[in-house]
Amino acid sequence: MNQYMSLKDHVYNYISQKINEGSLTPNEKINEQLICEELNISRTPVREALIQLATEGYLENIPRKGFRVRPIDENKAIEFYMIIGVLEGLAAYNAVDYITSKEISYMKELLISMDKAIDIELYDDYYKIQTVFHNTFVNICNNEELIRLINQLKRSFIRQTYINKESDNLYEILKVTNSEHKEIIKLFELKDKEKLRSYIRDVHWNTQNAKFDSI
Amino acid sequence: MNQYMSLKDHVYNYISQKINEGSLTPNEKINEQLICEELNISRTPVREALIQLATEGYLENIPRKGFRVRPIDENKAIEFYMIIGVLEGLAAYNAVDYITSKEISYMKELLISMDKAIDIELYDDYYKIQTVFHNTFVNICNNEELIRLINQLKRSFIRQTYINKESDNLYEILKVTNSEHKEIIKLFELKDKEKLRSYIRDVHWNTQNAKFDSI
Repeated sequence: MNQYMSLKDHVYNYISQKINEGSLTPNEKINEQLICEELNISRTPVREALIQLATEGYLENIPRKGFRVRPIDENKAIEFYMIIGVLEGLAAYNAVDYITSKEISYMKELLISMDKAIDIELYDDYYKIQTVFHNTFVNICNNEELIRLINQLKRSFIRQTYINKESDNLYEILKVTNSEHKEIIKLFELKDKEKLRSYIRDVHWNTQNAKFDSI
Repeated sequence: MNQYMSLKDHVYNYISQKINEGSLTPNEKINEQLICEELNISRTPVREALIQLATEGYLENIPRKGFRVRPIDENKAIEFYMIIGVLEGLAAYNAVDYITSKEISYMKELLISMDKAIDIELYDDYYKIQTVFHNTFVNICNNEELIRLINQLKRSFIRQTYINKESDNLYEILKVTNSEHKEIIKLFELKDKEKLRSYIRDVHWNTQNAKFDSI
């Protein structure tokens, strides 16, 4: 355990990781006692981590019933897509003023790596690289609250489960998604703030794709 | 105390109200022991409420130092304005498809009430009515997550303190703001989704006004 990390943060990471990797499933009740035993800690930091996870949207807190993993149905996924679309659109819009040629070159490298990962069906690698790709421009938007909010929403919503989905057309879907990443780079190079904002909002986070992230 | 409200929620309301009304001030340390005594409750629900308030952005949790009221400087206020601008713009964009003539009439009544409140310098009343005005269209955007997020951001950020500010030009500022409310109603009547979205984002939540909400 990281010695600078609070017990609450340790429990937070422990539970959120279980949710993200799918070993805690939608609607599953959180067994507080079991977590206390597994981590050999008292109830207080566990309760604190559960409150934070519920506030962020990972869990539902049902009065007198305790905490459950919040399911993300297709309708809920559409709601998140719309929100992340406008927020990431804003981040990109602002990032145009700060992005350097070095960062654009880095995004181009990531684009090639993502393409290779899709080709050899290493979807787990693709997922990790696309996270880095998006973070590259989000992190330079010069708005700390926006960065924090985008990360929080993505954490509570996107649960890596699609990687494990046996989808016939996952290859095709990711190829299209990666062609969109290429367009995003192009719009950064053109410094076309307006088009970049609407492209990310209306095309890249098109709610048509939300069904792939509902679980 | 509401018998259906958890102790944690009770503490949450108690502290957030103190922050909003200004009796807990920016950078002030939260005295956990004092709250336990004032509400005659144990430390656990107080800790839980503090974690939620920190997750939502009301408080800062400084390791080994405890919780403090987060100050909102002008730069931070600008960050919030940009975020709320795009989110409320999205809400209004979507609400155009659902708004009824009854709701538009209601917004027109609120507009008149706000104008009267400004004229007789009842800025506290103005503040309450403008909240109802914005909620009228936000609540019909058909996106629960968006409604939840907008409310959370506004709660943690806008702290009614401007009402108490001795500002020479508060009258003029609010007159302009209310003329913007009039324009918002007009764009709803015209069902001009695109213009409504950009008007709310770029004019009504213009970051030039953020200085009035920094504390």
